[in-house]
Amino acid sequence: MSKKIVVIGGSAAGPKAASKARRMDENAEITIIQKASDLSMASCGYPYYIGGFFDDRDQLLCSPAGVIRDSRFFWNAKKIETKVRCEVQSIDRKKKTVNYINLENGEKNIQPYDKLIIATGATPRKPQIPGIDLDGITTLQSLQDADYLRKVRDEGKIKKAVVIGGGLIGIETCEALNLAGIEITLVEMLPQLLTFLDDQMAKIVEKYVQTKANVILKNGVSAFIGKEGKLTAVKLQNGTEIPCELAVLAIGVTPNSKLAADAGLETGATGGIKVNGYMQTDDPDIYAVGDCIEINNLISGISVHAPYGDLANLQGRVAGENVISGNVKKFPGVIQSGICKVFDYGVGAIGLSEQNAVKAGITDIETVINASLDKPGFMQGKLLITKLVVKKEDGRIIGAQVIGPGDVSKQLAIWAMAIKAKFNVEDMVNADLPYAPPFSLAIDHSIATAHIMQNKLSGKMQGINASQLKNSVKQKENLFLLDVRNPNEFEVLRLGLGEVLIPLGQLRKRLNELPEDKNTPIVTWCKISLRGYEAALILKANGYKNVRVLEGGIMSWPYTLEK
Amino acid sequence: MSKKIVVIGGSAAGPKAASKARRMDENAEITIIQKASDLSMASCGYPYYIGGFFDDRDQLLCSPAGVIRDSRFFWNAKKIETKVRCEVQSIDRKKKTVNYINLENGEKNIQPYDKLIIATGATPRKPQIPGIDLDGITTLQSLQDADYLRKVRDEGKIKKAVVIGGGLIGIETCEALNLAGIEITLVEMLPQLLTFLDDQMAKIVEKYVQTKANVILKNGVSAFIGKEGKLTAVKLQNGTEIPCELAVLAIGVTPNSKLAADAGLETGATGGIKVNGYMQTDDPDIYAVGDCIEINNLISGISVHAPYGDLANLQGRVAGENVISGNVKKFPGVIQSGICKVFDYGVGAIGLSEQNAVKAGITDIETVINASLDKPGFMQGKLLITKLVVKKEDGRIIGAQVIGPGDVSKQLAIWAMAIKAKFNVEDMVNADLPYAPPFSLAIDHSIATAHIMQNKLSGKMQGINASQLKNSVKQKENLFLLDVRNPNEFEVLRLGLGEVLIPLGQLRKRLNELPEDKNTPIVTWCKISLRGYEAALILKANGYKNVRVLEGGIMSWPYTLEK
Repeated sequence: MSKKIVVIGGSAAGPKAASKARRMDENAEITIIQKASDLSMASCGYPYYIGGFFDDRDQLLCSPAGVIRDSRFFWNAKKIETKVRCEVQSIDRKKKTVNYINLENGEKNIQPYDKLIIATGATPRKPQIPGIDLDGITTLQSLQDADYLRKVRDEGKIKKAVVIGGGLIGIETCEALNLAGIEITLVEMLPQLLTFLDDQMAKIVEKYVQTKANVILKNGVSAFIGKEGKLTAVKLQNGTEIPCELAVLAIGVTPNSKLAADAGLETGATGGIKVNGYMQTDDPDIYAVGDCIEINNLISGISVHAPYGDLANLQGRVAGENVISGNVKKFPGVIQSGICKVFDYGVGAIGLSEQNAVKAGITDIETVINASLDKPGFMQGKLLITKLVVKKEDGRIIGAQVIGPGDVSKQLAIWAMAIKAKFNVEDMVNADLPYAPPFSLAIDHSIATAHIMQNKLSGKMQGINASQLKNSVKQKENLFLLDVRNPNEFEVLRLGLGEVLIPLGQLRKRLNELPEDKNTPIVTWCKISLRGYEAALILKANGYKNVRVLEGGIMSWPYTLEK
Repeated sequence: MSKKIVVIGGSAAGPKAASKARRMDENAEITIIQKASDLSMASCGYPYYIGGFFDDRDQLLCSPAGVIRDSRFFWNAKKIETKVRCEVQSIDRKKKTVNYINLENGEKNIQPYDKLIIATGATPRKPQIPGIDLDGITTLQSLQDADYLRKVRDEGKIKKAVVIGGGLIGIETCEALNLAGIEITLVEMLPQLLTFLDDQMAKIVEKYVQTKANVILKNGVSAFIGKEGKLTAVKLQNGTEIPCELAVLAIGVTPNSKLAADAGLETGATGGIKVNGYMQTDDPDIYAVGDCIEINNLISGISVHAPYGDLANLQGRVAGENVISGNVKKFPGVIQSGICKVFDYGVGAIGLSEQNAVKAGITDIETVINASLDKPGFMQGKLLITKLVVKKEDGRIIGAQVIGPGDVSKQLAIWAMAIKAKFNVEDMVNADLPYAPPFSLAIDHSIATAHIMQNKLSGKMQGINASQLKNSVKQKENLFLLDVRNPNEFEVLRLGLGEVLIPLGQLRKRLNELPEDKNTPIVTWCKISLRGYEAALILKANGYKNVRVLEGGIMSWPYTLEK
């Protein structure tokens, strides 16, 4: 007799699980029950549709061959029955049925299953504050949200918008609406954007985003203000009112696990459904995948909510095979990789930031910031800034953040592989990556980052980061500040902290210009701090005992520069 | 007493070794003896200077801060003495001295060393055939070669050129000269371009290069023909004469190991100097790095000549540290990674191709070809074609070739890391790579490639590659050929092998159109063979016993298509 596979949810993880199950078993009866009216929506593409990167909405719903993935497509190409606009109301685990309602006509039905896959996704958080139901307030989660915001673009009437939340979706929404010609204010409750970044990295991104939008940090929304039912302003917790006709809420999502919890399935501290490596819940006949679950972080060992489209697909594929073949495939967990485009910048992180490592109880860490071009200057190389996080004990790489106009995506992919492989720094210093000038530097940025980390771990280099330096200067600590670039570079741009300029090439001859007291704390730097490092070595060889290098040099300085 | 470090060679590996040695020891006496007049030339950048990607020749000689790396720079910034236009004639290992001649004035000198680093590079091969000394014949190795070819570009007089050799340098030279407005014929003795690729992949590249240059395979040069000392034609081994005013020889390089061999140091079968993991020759006081050595291939265990700029730098760094600190750092060997830009294509390989694996005695392998976009169509995704090579026994990944207009560089970096990590296919199928639509598909091309390989290894999919299919058709084997795309796709482009079109969505209803004999060999495909795979599964579930999928589908078909 053919197996009955029922999948709840038809966005990403669900259809993938159903399709994989079909490929494993031509004879299974496979049904997807989907609350929305669309199927297999490319929801990660919504910001780009809104931003006008493409105009054909169908592209969000198409297979690579250009066919819309509707119920007919699923039936004809995959023999998968899809019940759209149908909402599952309960799961009867004893009878092995789900009860669902047709949202079009109110009809209630029962669907039996041998194996059930829950892929109910997540819902954007909405703060319960005054005015939340005004016209002009939206999230960016559903295709209907995307349609609404695309209409805003096409109509061109709205001039000012507030985006609430400085995470991935918030940042992507900023770009999309800016490209739609709308003046944006981005409001974030925390002291920084993008919490997968450490503060200095986030600060650099913030400085860049400020050139496109008004960024307000450490401030939440206390109310939405309206007139005749329409939004007219956003009121912040500090009392500021920002006039606007549109507000987009992007303050995170909550896993849709209520259906599972109501059926007695275990959920975790994140609110996500608990699953084992086979993507199986504590009911052996029920699997769960995608944004509604929580999953093991392979670095910290902590269960996390990781609502990413790529993971949803991979998890769906694992569950789709296991429901047919028994538990034969495992999803190993996540290292948490995130990337987003912010205008001409790529911004992303793999694994743990320094801040998140500390939160996870991993405190014996070393970090380094490296700035360089992604390829040679003569090939129009663009800037990359990387912060690498490793365990001091064994140099094991546990996190990397990369930002900049350069090829961020490749760098992050390299670190994702390094972390998955449990590489330590020594594994990376002689990595054999493909090199040609159109694609990278002779020593790739990732490898150079490992080199600097190696120098730090071995005690050859002592670093100081931008916020530490800024703080020391603010505290009027007795520091000798040494910029070792060339006069023409200094002329154009400098930190302006009272630093002395001695070009590296003159340093050995001009050591008499340095403090006599060899214990004086000295900080050296250059554009990216390679010369700064060489300068520090010269000073140390000449008896200076307290020399640090400003990591990432001037290119990674997140504060105002003197011009 | 300060250590005397002498480095022979001032291009890439040598200066890197010297600089690292300086950073390890401020007091060492470090000397570079360099035969050419320039130092630290970005020789990998020559093709792009010739091609006009940039016009300022100084950029080939500059530090990232824009300072020319001449003798003054090395002395001032790094306290490294450089003797340029000086050629080392012999090494006296007993006295620990090198004897060199100043090529400017003929003066002979002796330089003592405590530790010696040989970084003498490699020399382009020149066939000893008639006419080889005619004006208009050059290699592309030295800065003088680059100057010569750049002058050709700037003068714009030469109309026709022959590039001899279809390897990396030959291909890059083709692009450079084509961009200089010169009509190019590319001649390669072997049956394919770029021997790091397997034939089908090379054929796809060839088809693309044919749109820019006249490509002649399986033909060598027998003579250069000239008039009044100037080249007028290249004569091929088959008698063809190709009129041209310029010929560029790019038939590989030979390690410059004679100096080392004359001193009694061991060289290997490749002609390169033998070194251990510390980059040390069989004389403990002499190290060797860069294009003059041979190095262990980590996959095959065979010593290879791998003359790449990135490896030269990494090896230099290791030797630079070891000459100061004793043997503390190891260079682990290479997996051999190569990449080049060919107009709008990226082309490269990591590890072993199928052909090279077989040559290395690794025969129990499985391969797969995958074609897809690098990111979604709505983000202007571009084609990637990957051939993956794994060991059948344990699925261990030993090679990957990637070509196409898509983001080849990132794909290759991912595979380089996978191979370095000794990953098998199962390690890759759930890799957690950074995903957002501007950068990749939800299931990254590399992961999808692993998925297909997983399907092959588990017996779910049987594949056939293009040359096998073409051959079978040629042999008039009894094959049923099934294209499962949509009629509109078929209309535009098809293989034209006598295939039947049944769109995937109609296949289950039209099974009666297939051969009655369930043993008939069937080959299915679509654009990229995802639908082709689904079709094969349907046929197998319906009793067909001999169904194969054309790997990579129509997008990977290297032969002429019917339009």
